[in-house]
Amino acid sequence: MFELKAYIKQQNQLIDASLDTMLPHAQSPDTLVRAMRYSLLAGGKRIRPVLCLAACEAVGGAPEKAMTVACALEMIHTYSLIHDDLPAMDDDRLRRGKATCHIAFDEATAILAGDALLTLSFEIIATAKPPDETAAARWLQVIRLIAKAAGYRGMIQGQMLDIASEGVDLAAGELETMHRLKTGALIETAVACGALLGGANQHQRELLDNYARKIGLAFQVADDLLNVEGNPERMGKSTGTDSLRKKSTYPSVLGIQASREFAERLVQESLQALENFDKLANPLRSIARYIIERKH
Amino acid sequence: MFELKAYIKQQNQLIDASLDTMLPHAQSPDTLVRAMRYSLLAGGKRIRPVLCLAACEAVGGAPEKAMTVACALEMIHTYSLIHDDLPAMDDDRLRRGKATCHIAFDEATAILAGDALLTLSFEIIATAKPPDETAAARWLQVIRLIAKAAGYRGMIQGQMLDIASEGVDLAAGELETMHRLKTGALIETAVACGALLGGANQHQRELLDNYARKIGLAFQVADDLLNVEGNPERMGKSTGTDSLRKKSTYPSVLGIQASREFAERLVQESLQALENFDKLANPLRSIARYIIERKH
Repeated sequence: MFELKAYIKQQNQLIDASLDTMLPHAQSPDTLVRAMRYSLLAGGKRIRPVLCLAACEAVGGAPEKAMTVACALEMIHTYSLIHDDLPAMDDDRLRRGKATCHIAFDEATAILAGDALLTLSFEIIATAKPPDETAAARWLQVIRLIAKAAGYRGMIQGQMLDIASEGVDLAAGELETMHRLKTGALIETAVACGALLGGANQHQRELLDNYARKIGLAFQVADDLLNVEGNPERMGKSTGTDSLRKKSTYPSVLGIQASREFAERLVQESLQALENFDKLANPLRSIARYIIERKH
Repeated sequence: MFELKAYIKQQNQLIDASLDTMLPHAQSPDTLVRAMRYSLLAGGKRIRPVLCLAACEAVGGAPEKAMTVACALEMIHTYSLIHDDLPAMDDDRLRRGKATCHIAFDEATAILAGDALLTLSFEIIATAKPPDETAAARWLQVIRLIAKAAGYRGMIQGQMLDIASEGVDLAAGELETMHRLKTGALIETAVACGALLGGANQHQRELLDNYARKIGLAFQVADDLLNVEGNPERMGKSTGTDSLRKKSTYPSVLGIQASREFAERLVQESLQALENFDKLANPLRSIARYIIERKH
């Protein structure tokens, strides 16, 4: 039996160790660097990098090949959290169990730390040693995929829609579009980049894209459920905030029971997409289940 | 005689036409895209892209080769202005003769439009057609140079120092470090990328680096002088703001006359760096002079 907990723990240690080397030392007197490290090394779930490494592994690649990109994805995710938490956006004070970046430092530093993490994510990919010229073209492709998913047609557009939807009753389809952009796009790209760097063929890439689309949405449904039912201490962030802000969520649109069933169906479909993969895809299979069973 | 005005006008038309194609149509109903276009196509001086194209030309390259990177540099410059203008930073209401992005739209949209322009800058470089594999490695090198110059060891660090220095009397050396990071790094990279894409050899690249360092600093000294002496209507932004914010500037540290002489000396040194270049470097020579003679 595949031990997901041990797997995630081990991968997270590797990811955190890599992230740690990508910035100057923790004792840096540099406020900007301290703010970047504060948010980046606050110990999140590392879902995106874990997915990237697991997708690389699923097609027979050595996960180390995808480590740089996995770290870049976590930097982009962290920058988006720092900016989303700002007073002009979600105005959140608690994240990953600690004060948000603009509370621990100040607003200007938080904006700049986010900018700097986004910029660094592209720098580290462009700096990854390409062992041959074919690899250079592949790294460019990875940058293209990530920038598109994180940009104005992807994650950033999703955040715009999220802000605009406060107090508005969304239909289930609109809610799905918003989440597909806000969290789905980067999750899908994490899997796509891992597959690409692991040497996936076209058919494998399509199956993994399908897997990623399903779990990306399941992740968000589970997040909405946790915002209603979760324990804020365990989660390290406030709960009940969606309802306070009159945000449309899966529980508010579909009801709690139907949301649970929807998440379950999405996970089943994601597992079907992996049917023709061998046991190297077991981490991806376990992550799908974990995504809706997690308590934070 | 080389006609700089006509040259800059022509290059700006080409740059603006290129930028225009890199985003969805102006009549887009998409607020995020409208905010990005609003700031990007507000008609700045386009110093960085013009320098990039002129550096490419100076070493015998066709300037079209550097157009994508020139546009990416302008996107990064624009994003940095949008974020610098935010209430949590410089809190400016006027830029390029128009309301700043967060005034014309709102703060959340301005933060996200800046994020989106930064992300798009890397996307367009990674999407530029590499005709062969050597080109792919070169585009990666360009991304690396730009990300480093724009990141936490470059432009963003400069903005941190700028904010921290309000109300603090800086020595001339500290002022130079701050400006070298805040504006110099991206200007130097504009020239370096143009030279690289134009096929410069190592010696030419070193000379052009030296040229760029001198004019990068001269640009800032001239900016400080304009903040004291400039005409706000002509400049399209407020003047006298440095003194109001108790910022150290070249005029406040060296005095007005010595600042003018310093800028003049820097331009002379930048021209010396170009001594062994032929007439293809005339645009770079004229730009050096323009930088300290401009009225906005």
